[in-house]
Amino acid sequence: MGKGISQKKHRVTFLPFDISVNVPEGTKLADAIQKVHLPFSFPCGGEGTCGDCIVRITHGTYLAKPTAALSGQYIAEGFALACQTDITDDLVIVLPDFAELTIKTIASSEFFQSNKANMSGFIQFNPRLILTELRVPSPTLEDNYSDLERLEKAYKKQTGIKKVSSSLSVLPKLARILRSKKGSVQVVSFRETDEAQIVDVLTPARDKKIYGLACDIGTSTVALHLIDLGSGDIVSTTSSLNQQIKCGEDIISRINYSQKPGHLKELQKLVVHTINNLIRNASQKSGVSQADIYYAVFTGNTTMSHLLLKIDPHYIREEPYVPTFNDLPLFPAAELGLMMNPEAKISLSPSVGSYVGGDITAGLLSTPILRSAQKISLFIDAGTNGELVVGNKDWLMTCACSAGPAFEGSGIQCGMPASEGAIEAIKLDTTGRASYRVIGGTKPKGLCGSGLVDLLAELFIHGYIDRHGKFRKERNPDRIMESEEGIVFLVEDHAHSFWGNDICITEKDIANLLRTKGAVYSACSILLKNVGLRNDEIASIYIAGGFGQHLDVENAIRIGLLPDLERERFHYIGNSSLLGAYLILFSDENRAMVQNLAKKMTYIELNTEPSYMNEFTGSMFLPHTEMKLFPSVKKLLS
Amino acid sequence: MGKGISQKKHRVTFLPFDISVNVPEGTKLADAIQKVHLPFSFPCGGEGTCGDCIVRITHGTYLAKPTAALSGQYIAEGFALACQTDITDDLVIVLPDFAELTIKTIASSEFFQSNKANMSGFIQFNPRLILTELRVPSPTLEDNYSDLERLEKAYKKQTGIKKVSSSLSVLPKLARILRSKKGSVQVVSFRETDEAQIVDVLTPARDKKIYGLACDIGTSTVALHLIDLGSGDIVSTTSSLNQQIKCGEDIISRINYSQKPGHLKELQKLVVHTINNLIRNASQKSGVSQADIYYAVFTGNTTMSHLLLKIDPHYIREEPYVPTFNDLPLFPAAELGLMMNPEAKISLSPSVGSYVGGDITAGLLSTPILRSAQKISLFIDAGTNGELVVGNKDWLMTCACSAGPAFEGSGIQCGMPASEGAIEAIKLDTTGRASYRVIGGTKPKGLCGSGLVDLLAELFIHGYIDRHGKFRKERNPDRIMESEEGIVFLVEDHAHSFWGNDICITEKDIANLLRTKGAVYSACSILLKNVGLRNDEIASIYIAGGFGQHLDVENAIRIGLLPDLERERFHYIGNSSLLGAYLILFSDENRAMVQNLAKKMTYIELNTEPSYMNEFTGSMFLPHTEMKLFPSVKKLLS
Repeated sequence: MGKGISQKKHRVTFLPFDISVNVPEGTKLADAIQKVHLPFSFPCGGEGTCGDCIVRITHGTYLAKPTAALSGQYIAEGFALACQTDITDDLVIVLPDFAELTIKTIASSEFFQSNKANMSGFIQFNPRLILTELRVPSPTLEDNYSDLERLEKAYKKQTGIKKVSSSLSVLPKLARILRSKKGSVQVVSFRETDEAQIVDVLTPARDKKIYGLACDIGTSTVALHLIDLGSGDIVSTTSSLNQQIKCGEDIISRINYSQKPGHLKELQKLVVHTINNLIRNASQKSGVSQADIYYAVFTGNTTMSHLLLKIDPHYIREEPYVPTFNDLPLFPAAELGLMMNPEAKISLSPSVGSYVGGDITAGLLSTPILRSAQKISLFIDAGTNGELVVGNKDWLMTCACSAGPAFEGSGIQCGMPASEGAIEAIKLDTTGRASYRVIGGTKPKGLCGSGLVDLLAELFIHGYIDRHGKFRKERNPDRIMESEEGIVFLVEDHAHSFWGNDICITEKDIANLLRTKGAVYSACSILLKNVGLRNDEIASIYIAGGFGQHLDVENAIRIGLLPDLERERFHYIGNSSLLGAYLILFSDENRAMVQNLAKKMTYIELNTEPSYMNEFTGSMFLPHTEMKLFPSVKKLLS
Repeated sequence: MGKGISQKKHRVTFLPFDISVNVPEGTKLADAIQKVHLPFSFPCGGEGTCGDCIVRITHGTYLAKPTAALSGQYIAEGFALACQTDITDDLVIVLPDFAELTIKTIASSEFFQSNKANMSGFIQFNPRLILTELRVPSPTLEDNYSDLERLEKAYKKQTGIKKVSSSLSVLPKLARILRSKKGSVQVVSFRETDEAQIVDVLTPARDKKIYGLACDIGTSTVALHLIDLGSGDIVSTTSSLNQQIKCGEDIISRINYSQKPGHLKELQKLVVHTINNLIRNASQKSGVSQADIYYAVFTGNTTMSHLLLKIDPHYIREEPYVPTFNDLPLFPAAELGLMMNPEAKISLSPSVGSYVGGDITAGLLSTPILRSAQKISLFIDAGTNGELVVGNKDWLMTCACSAGPAFEGSGIQCGMPASEGAIEAIKLDTTGRASYRVIGGTKPKGLCGSGLVDLLAELFIHGYIDRHGKFRKERNPDRIMESEEGIVFLVEDHAHSFWGNDICITEKDIANLLRTKGAVYSACSILLKNVGLRNDEIASIYIAGGFGQHLDVENAIRIGLLPDLERERFHYIGNSSLLGAYLILFSDENRAMVQNLAKKMTYIELNTEPSYMNEFTGSMFLPHTEMKLFPSVKKLLS
């Protein structure tokens, strides 16, 4: 009866997400991927040259097209480029494993156990959401208080808390549950110092557990712990790319993207979708019901926090750089569409300002900085945005710089996050041949941050690049070669790489890495200048970021990312923001501590510092224009 | 392409609601009415004999069927019975005017003004939701607090309140609104004694007003005031039948109905639908936007409160008669699906127990009872459920009885609510001919509560019925006659009635009225016996209920509904529950007062009082088995 012409449709299923979509015959696979909001990017614009959109097709027929980025061998194994493949059959697609990156650097339970003595956060386990067994006396004609009054009385009696209220959602089932086991119930309550809210009432079940989430929303990567709120144990850890990444790689491009109609809503949906996928993964792996998740602590930079709440981040990048909010009271999960108990409470780690967010305040908790009154420490988070904090228990000063996501593997030809297949450490022999260590022990797929730091240092020390980061082709014509990308250094050839492509680094990549390390180092100089401290007055330096499991401090100094100080002063702490989220969830006192420190920190706006541009320009060299700042590197080179 | 056979559909539009529904050809009009949840009942089961489902069809063709309940004259004027009419055309239906009953007894602004001096509730205007003009300083590089911090600081400074928070929904628009008029904003805030919550932020507009609702959810009737929260003025008043009425007329039948699958949800939807219709009517009449409604106070008996929140009321009628809740903190309107600002706060007047609800606690506020420490007063609410309270400022004792909805016009052949067309006062001459006053001055449609009290007293005084309520046909064979309903007394014949039917009262009606008045009187006796007081120790008696605008106290005593005391001790106060809702909204102190009194009241369970059955049986006579309790009636009869 309709006017439309019947069009053949095909079903495409994406694993491991198990998301399906029906699309008309002839649709590009790349378009189907975008339709279901999977976190793919297409840097070459669908030309089939970059190979970033590689997938494996396990069921269904399709026309295999060899391209520059995909060798015949991989085509034979079922690999295809999404941008080059038309859908003419029902397909089952296995996505590359960024779906669940095995990021080794995120805080695991053992990490926490072995390091907790050094963290600023109190470590006495005291979560806000607790499960309590309660015995509520049955009503009689003489004692005919309402069910709610009897429940709250029993709770007050048992806990000693005087001010108790209950969620509205408790009421519809209360009468039934109170009578099902003669007044024996389990209640989930949300405790503050001197008051409590009963958020759920359950028929008692042996082994009942309730859970919480600690989740770091990074500009590039979102990582999550699922935590048993009874013991504090991490029962599952998972992470993935932030699906917003297709709308821009850094926060400035996200903010710009958000300004068009409908885009703010899209960005919020993408991050909620990312988080919900992680929740689903984590709860499936551990057999936990999402309805048993009652608390979540989120950390993220100020822009990420704003986008999570669908708040226009526009004014963050406009003078005087004022965010809509820095700190919020807890609010219900249902408001955001997060897949957990609708009565679950959400806590956001407080920001200091537009460019120093809740990831930094939380991250500080995981260092010993707030423990010492004498010693002065420096905290460097070299994420997509770089943030630095200097100070101690009594004072803290902070600044931020646009470092860019280079050390997280973004914007680098063969860069990748610190997940399976990433080269995390690398050394060149005298012929320039690389020996390296790959995460997961597979063939290499690319380089993560720590691998890139190593590679840059090795290229510099071997003299394959000059202090400007330009190749000296004459030094090793075998490995420094011309390609479509200009001059490149060949790390590993296609025969030995996972995807069958050459793994190499371009001059553009190197320039990118120099900009990033220069931004961090110069921000560090300005910050110390502002507080009137010399480098050597810093007792400890804590380095956070998504480099990988191990960061070679020696190499980081050689490239001028970190100041040239005694090596034992440096501590690489990985994803401190996630660990901070965990600490906030772990103990309510930590939430109070992080709120206090957010208020206490003084923010220096680098954009208005006259000397910043000079410092930055000087820091773009290897290791720096002023060689005297890096005596150990000078000695090595001479 | 589909397998279904195309079926002709017709659109039926119901006025004055202006609700439309599409139904297949041949659908019964009665079914279409039920489909859109209109508050119709079909007592005769669709036989066309009772005439209760009369409607007027103003557009469209249909087959007119004369029935016993519908004379040819009315068919000619476009009236039809919904249960007898098949839909074969697009129709426009005008429903009878219960859609918006002109209940004259509900508290109007003038009533309040002239009586406030006597009410217990404080009358200093002090609502919880207020609109404030605020000037928020613009941010600078030096003063770069977040927008939220600057808003809350400015609010604190202006109001002196130290603890201020904001709704999450304020955030997305905050940055824009703060900058649209250089920091001049209007904020809607929810104030408690020493803290406040900002629930909305608006671009300043001259003449901006915010509104609240006071709403009494009666078992039979729902009535609502729309109130200007700036002045306390009632800008619109409206009421309608409670749409739940089709699921049972009294609370016991509602509770029974709620026990079947899906019925609890249906009952909740029906009452929310009733309230939303009233909100729409009230806001349309007064030109108020529903988004400007930020606060609502609801009063109702305990079963109505439970059904509003979709809580199983099952245990209310099971020993030991314990409700799920008596008192709740304020909660957001969005949880119930009410048509007002999603951030609006809902307050329910607290109950005392299963059978003494928030309508009674609120109603007490509108009397002077709580003002006096010496004088003892009695409060009688003779609604569908009868509740009585005795006491003063220092103590209160209460009980409840199943009075039945007879005095609200339900379950009585020609009974009706106190709306247009109801006989509200009646007198018989020596021939038994009735002279009467009709609400709205139209032809009579039936009798409301006050008319029924008068009629019963007149029949008794004229000797047309004996002390058992049985007709003495021989006393007036012209007006006491046999009919399909048994023996009836003819009040007005069909030629002079609005609907063209005889208006009469049956022996069954009288038995029903005697049960109701007997229940109220015997409850009163037991209550006073329990506190050790004689009738004449009660200084004032306040009578609430839906009788009509005027209740003839003399006649109420003659039938034994009220005790035989000096007439000037009686005060008929109409819908005290609605007035109480208004008082709670009017001043926050009243909410505290009503919470206190709910806690203070002692409840006597009549079902477990051994003497209640005796008292009840004795009270079923006219005026009572013990004539000595009614000396003035005894004197009149002799």
